[in-house]
Amino acid sequence: MKEISLGNILQKINYPKDIKSLSKSELKELCNDVRQYIIDVLSENPGHLASSLGTVELAVALHYLFDIPNDTLVWDVGHQAYAHKVLTGRKEDFKNIRKLNGPSGFPRRDESSFDSFGTGHASTSVSASLGMAVADKIKGDSSKYHIAVIGDGSMTGGEAFEALNHAGSTSANLLVILNDNGIAIDEGVGALSQYLTTITTSHTYNRIKNKIWNALGGNKEEYNPHRTFFKRILFSIKSWFSGKSNFFEALNFRYFGPIDGNDLNQLLKTLSGLKRIQGPKLLHIITKKGKGLVAAENNPTTYHAPGLFNSETGALESKSEKEGGVKKFQEIFGETLISLAQKHKNIACITPAMLTGSGLNEMKEKFPDRTFDVGIAEEHAVTFSAGLSTRGIVPYCCIYSSFLQRGIDQIIHDVALQNLHVVFCIDRAGLVGEDGATHHGVFDLAYLNMIPNMIVAAPKDEYELQDMMYLAYSVDKPFAIRYPRGKCFHRYSQYTVKNLEIGRAEKVFEGEKTAVLTIGSIYNNAKKAIECLKQEGKNIGLYNMRFLKPLDTSLLDEVCAKYDNIITIEDGVIRGGFGWSVEDYIKQHKLNNNITCLGLPDKFIEHGSVSELQKLCGIDVESITETIRQIK
Amino acid sequence: MKEISLGNILQKINYPKDIKSLSKSELKELCNDVRQYIIDVLSENPGHLASSLGTVELAVALHYLFDIPNDTLVWDVGHQAYAHKVLTGRKEDFKNIRKLNGPSGFPRRDESSFDSFGTGHASTSVSASLGMAVADKIKGDSSKYHIAVIGDGSMTGGEAFEALNHAGSTSANLLVILNDNGIAIDEGVGALSQYLTTITTSHTYNRIKNKIWNALGGNKEEYNPHRTFFKRILFSIKSWFSGKSNFFEALNFRYFGPIDGNDLNQLLKTLSGLKRIQGPKLLHIITKKGKGLVAAENNPTTYHAPGLFNSETGALESKSEKEGGVKKFQEIFGETLISLAQKHKNIACITPAMLTGSGLNEMKEKFPDRTFDVGIAEEHAVTFSAGLSTRGIVPYCCIYSSFLQRGIDQIIHDVALQNLHVVFCIDRAGLVGEDGATHHGVFDLAYLNMIPNMIVAAPKDEYELQDMMYLAYSVDKPFAIRYPRGKCFHRYSQYTVKNLEIGRAEKVFEGEKTAVLTIGSIYNNAKKAIECLKQEGKNIGLYNMRFLKPLDTSLLDEVCAKYDNIITIEDGVIRGGFGWSVEDYIKQHKLNNNITCLGLPDKFIEHGSVSELQKLCGIDVESITETIRQIK
Repeated sequence: MKEISLGNILQKINYPKDIKSLSKSELKELCNDVRQYIIDVLSENPGHLASSLGTVELAVALHYLFDIPNDTLVWDVGHQAYAHKVLTGRKEDFKNIRKLNGPSGFPRRDESSFDSFGTGHASTSVSASLGMAVADKIKGDSSKYHIAVIGDGSMTGGEAFEALNHAGSTSANLLVILNDNGIAIDEGVGALSQYLTTITTSHTYNRIKNKIWNALGGNKEEYNPHRTFFKRILFSIKSWFSGKSNFFEALNFRYFGPIDGNDLNQLLKTLSGLKRIQGPKLLHIITKKGKGLVAAENNPTTYHAPGLFNSETGALESKSEKEGGVKKFQEIFGETLISLAQKHKNIACITPAMLTGSGLNEMKEKFPDRTFDVGIAEEHAVTFSAGLSTRGIVPYCCIYSSFLQRGIDQIIHDVALQNLHVVFCIDRAGLVGEDGATHHGVFDLAYLNMIPNMIVAAPKDEYELQDMMYLAYSVDKPFAIRYPRGKCFHRYSQYTVKNLEIGRAEKVFEGEKTAVLTIGSIYNNAKKAIECLKQEGKNIGLYNMRFLKPLDTSLLDEVCAKYDNIITIEDGVIRGGFGWSVEDYIKQHKLNNNITCLGLPDKFIEHGSVSELQKLCGIDVESITETIRQIK
Repeated sequence: MKEISLGNILQKINYPKDIKSLSKSELKELCNDVRQYIIDVLSENPGHLASSLGTVELAVALHYLFDIPNDTLVWDVGHQAYAHKVLTGRKEDFKNIRKLNGPSGFPRRDESSFDSFGTGHASTSVSASLGMAVADKIKGDSSKYHIAVIGDGSMTGGEAFEALNHAGSTSANLLVILNDNGIAIDEGVGALSQYLTTITTSHTYNRIKNKIWNALGGNKEEYNPHRTFFKRILFSIKSWFSGKSNFFEALNFRYFGPIDGNDLNQLLKTLSGLKRIQGPKLLHIITKKGKGLVAAENNPTTYHAPGLFNSETGALESKSEKEGGVKKFQEIFGETLISLAQKHKNIACITPAMLTGSGLNEMKEKFPDRTFDVGIAEEHAVTFSAGLSTRGIVPYCCIYSSFLQRGIDQIIHDVALQNLHVVFCIDRAGLVGEDGATHHGVFDLAYLNMIPNMIVAAPKDEYELQDMMYLAYSVDKPFAIRYPRGKCFHRYSQYTVKNLEIGRAEKVFEGEKTAVLTIGSIYNNAKKAIECLKQEGKNIGLYNMRFLKPLDTSLLDEVCAKYDNIITIEDGVIRGGFGWSVEDYIKQHKLNNNITCLGLPDKFIEHGSVSELQKLCGIDVESITETIRQIK
């Protein structure tokens, strides 16, 4: 990494206490320094760029005005918290963000006491902050502030609503800052998003409101008989100007804003005022995603996590050149879905706010009436799919593995129990690398395994992904396909889909004494290991199981009869997953094969490159090779 | 069951088509007949009484006006759908509701085509109905109506909000009927509940609104330039009168009501009008839970599912007499929590709308500031608990097993990953009996098993429950205790809590050749089976494992060394649960014991009495005895 210089002010700042003595103009300069530093570091060490650029002023203002961690601060999702990390003792470490043993890309309680709550999945911040506020209240401490910073995208998640509903009936000292940049990763969707746009553009109302409010004594807490009266008038005026009514006030939150969240002075002034107001309140700020890097401002979706780029021009390093023309699983997925949708008019696809990440942009363009971005709303996505299915549509419900944890009850209760034909396309399965513990898709095999009626499949490569997507259309059952993020295993060429059979595995190599059974794309590591051992004269069997559920029991019988030793490999937790399924088969059939189960151990796996993490878990090529060697 | 007579009109009604020719006065009589029939049947065959009594007029009106199942009708939660069941071909069967092979207590697609969507868990109806509406739209059919009936309690669930947010941005032909009886099972909680009360009491506004609206042409769909203008005025007036703004209109739903949902004429008139209005709309109706049975009207929580009662007076059959002074697990739980809370000022308890069911009423009275009913909001309940924990409170987060499926992601992401001290008190674990497939708590052992950092315990009886609740306070880790619904195993006497050790099992009987290992209260069946076999001269070992995680490996070593055969028994799914854990231990330690895993097979278990269902699954005393006998 080239030498990255710190700005003049940032050089002097290590902890929030260093910020508190700065003048207003120095604070502004600090914002510039932090912003430039984030751009410089991320241009060389990829991460979540655009969101963090939008919240620099907010992070500076909060640390200037509040006393974190005595006050608490929860960053919803957390990928917008880079400035916060830089300002809280992690300035130098920040260069290694998301790298193995470097700081996490998300807040982590075990990384810093300034991270009040770990995040990663959306919509948890209000719940967690309310918990903290209520805890302090139980302890009789009413002096602390409790702040949740939540994006307009995260606000569509059901959990955020549940928390607002609870908070609004308490007197908890809670400040929710709605960081509205009109965009989650893709463009904002849903009625709430439209609603926020409407109130944001009602400038007239806000000007009038502020004038009246200030005339009546502003944010002071003393009782003012006029204020209650005027509050009513304000509501009415607001309805008049927006043609809408205020959502948050209906939930008993006092609503302030919207203000420009990239205007440091306005932020400081408003937040100072809010410090004097007790009870649940919401400040609506408008920020610019990608603020300070023109290319990112113009194209925030691309610059959400842009990979390497030129820190001055923002120009992206060309990926296609670097990756030698190998496509991503997501591209193949999107293309295959389009070809299926062209064939079958009753196919629809559903994504909870991951249109781009799931490779569905072209599908949306070609079939806008059959492509549904439902917002950050995994629970709804699953039940909505179930509803579609009851009326003859075949929904391909596309959700990242770790986010689908939000929809497990709906898979059980709305899909599997009713045996409905919903195809779950589970992206980002297995270790995802730099996003770390909150994002690894490593529980899916285990939790799907316990659900009756489910078919659970995992392709060894992008070709088999296509086979499975075709097969899933023709099988009138709940059908899950889990596949990894990132690059395919083959240079792309036209592929002709093969007919697969439910629960039928593939014999790849016959061998002697020892057989390796894999599920999903970890197959490719096993194959390399076995090819390597072949050169040592060892003949190891290899079986691509394809289906966790139903297991190919006739193949298992054959394998158990032929080999002494069985090794199962999966890129998910072993407990409850593939390895345990095979163990159970062996035990219940009173067979005596030795079995070694490779996969993820019973602990959370941190961030790092996929290959580093595979090595830690003993499922990289070298570790697999060594494990097989050790077996007598 | 005594002879139950049908009213004059109900005698003639078998299917909705029979309703359509009735006169208004006959429709009213039909309501009376249906209501009386529900009371008569439920007085002898217990079920969900009060909710269903409140929705009789609604069910009659919907089937009179709409063409179900061509139009679709989803009853959220579904325990209020008894009148619907009576009117849709299940009049006679209704006498056997919730009994083995009788109709389910909830809508079921496989029971009747009139049940558009199966329900049981809250807050799914808007998602499912939107799916149906969108499916018809994809197919080019805009002639159908899609109706979701959702209670004010269910409306607090995050999934309902996610669905409203999505629906409000579509032109889907969706009618959401908000069935507001101001109460879920316990009294309604949260800001939304307060909000609904406020708008309901704003009669002035609604009178004015209706007058203006009708003057302008009412619900006709022709364009009327005045209406847009007046819509704005209406919003303002509404804000003025309610001091609030309209929540649903902010989400782009057209809001109608509130009207009296037990007034058939008003319902018919309003619903007829709404048939002419396209797009997402919400009708707010106020109903009386328990309507028609005075005792139930006065005490809807008690009469939510009252057990046996006198059909004329509503007098409840005294339970304590019947149950011989044996308390329920829930009572013991509540009492123990109080004694803990008295000792430790930093204990709090959290329930998502199950205060009474979880035995927390007295806790609420004694410690109102440490008892939190957060509404039907399992996701929030878990993260809120995590937040409490970060500030030194020890939360006892009390959620029924099958509902905790809604919070799995939060257990993983917010609690276990951060290794926070949250005690999960998982009620209704195992087979719950008459509530059936949607309510059995049979996945918990499997899904908790896969989560790192968790301690997972299950007491054999109510004494051990107390031991575990005390232990959980002292262990600074995520700690789950799962226990069954219903009666305790001992006549109540004062109990002195024993010190348990994490991961330490209990040897109950030593035996020969065969050992039975149990987790949780299914222990009691195993014990009876073994005592029975003892009389046949068979000496079987019995071990109460107490902890699924961590397993007592030193005891397992001892057991594996001493016995040839091991039988595991659990009242949850075998896949991924206790049996598989023991199998894995045996295989990974290259031991050769035979193992038989008893528990729930890989299919959904329907409703019936617990003992009937245990028999079906082979875990009743007799089946266990027989299984042991068969082992050589």
